[in-house]
Amino acid sequence: MSQIEHATYGYVREKEALINRLHRIEGQVRGIERMVEEERYCIDILTQVSAVTTALDSLGLKILGDHVNSCVAHAFASGDEEAAAEKSRELLAAVERFTKTR
Amino acid sequence: MSQIEHATYGYVREKEALINRLHRIEGQVRGIERMVEEERYCIDILTQVSAVTTALDSLGLKILGDHVNSCVAHAFASGDEEAAAEKSRELLAAVERFTKTR
Amino acid sequence: MSQIEHATYGYVREKEALINRLHRIEGQVRGIERMVEEERYCIDILTQVSAVTTALDSLGLKILGDHVNSCVAHAFASGDEEAAAEKSRELLAAVERFTKTR
Amino acid sequence: MSQIEHATYGYVREKEALINRLHRIEGQVRGIERMVEEERYCIDILTQVSAVTTALDSLGLKILGDHVNSCVAHAFASGDEEAAAEKSRELLAAVERFTKTR
Repeated sequence: MSQIEHATYGYVREKEALINRLHRIEGQVRGIERMVEEERYCIDILTQVSAVTTALDSLGLKILGDHVNSCVAHAFASGDEEAAAEKSRELLAAVERFTKTR
Repeated sequence: MSQIEHATYGYVREKEALINRLHRIEGQVRGIERMVEEERYCIDILTQVSAVTTALDSLGLKILGDHVNSCVAHAFASGDEEAAAEKSRELLAAVERFTKTR
Repeated sequence: MSQIEHATYGYVREKEALINRLHRIEGQVRGIERMVEEERYCIDILTQVSAVTTALDSLGLKILGDHVNSCVAHAFASGDEEAAAEKSRELLAAVERFTKTR
Repeated sequence: MSQIEHATYGYVREKEALINRLHRIEGQVRGIERMVEEERYCIDILTQVSAVTTALDSLGLKILGDHVNSCVAHAFASGDEEAAAEKSRELLAAVERFTKTR
């Protein structure tokens, strides 16, 4: 895809914020590695694992929202039925992966 | 807790394998950062986010299994009812966090 | 809303199939009641509970898909930005409830 | 299994409460059928579907908790290692089904 189309990806407007969030998540994963290294209590490790999945789910929903409001909105508004059907299929597959209902 | 009690944590026996898995997950998160940096397609980013949550869920279940087979088993076998009740409460709270059914 | 607008709800086209699926789910729940009544083994009951949630998740995704392809598609194609923003907000809230990421 | 063993299933003590909860869930499913029949708004139907899965998850966790505190506790306390291993395997499989991390 061209740079111009790239510019329409919803999340790009808040790229820095997303990278910061991912950076924090990366740090959280590194923290869990340290906990395992230091042989910390299983339940405390599990609490951290759940915190990371929650952070990732929330980040995923943010990107999904931006996707709906940009790519999906654009495809549906374009009048190009095939493009709209494709975006809709992709969106629903993403939601399925999210909800682990494959 | 003493080092001796630490040694009973189920996951400790496979510490290296767990750290390797966490290290791979850390790399996956860094990969997502790069995808956002390079303004890759939203759906491809979401696919990677789902892959990381799946990897974390699977790691969490591994640690939970080790926990049941060591700490919980030990508490129930000890005859110490209070310790057993405490382990059971902790376990169920961990499962709740896991299933996001708080 | 008018009957005419109702007619645009995506799922209405397959109303009978959906009602049949819900009817089967209702029967499954009644089956679990019977299992509890007969004091069946906990794990067997839990397996049935999971089967019902899976069936409901799958039904929900079906309705969500129909919703995207009808109501959301329609709002985005209408050029009415407020209607589109409203549909998008609703859709994302539904996905959040689905993924229990409130 | 004998009636005597049945009596040890944790949930049996609150059988009536569980059946009442299941009965309410059954009613909720029937309510969704009616909503589809009356061609109600997709998002309102989805909200009800999510309410039912949440109710089922919560019921499942209740039964799981009772199971841990009775069957699993009993097996671990019995000193029968094979029985304990079997209960542990079953428990973790149930948690996996719950978290859809099969």
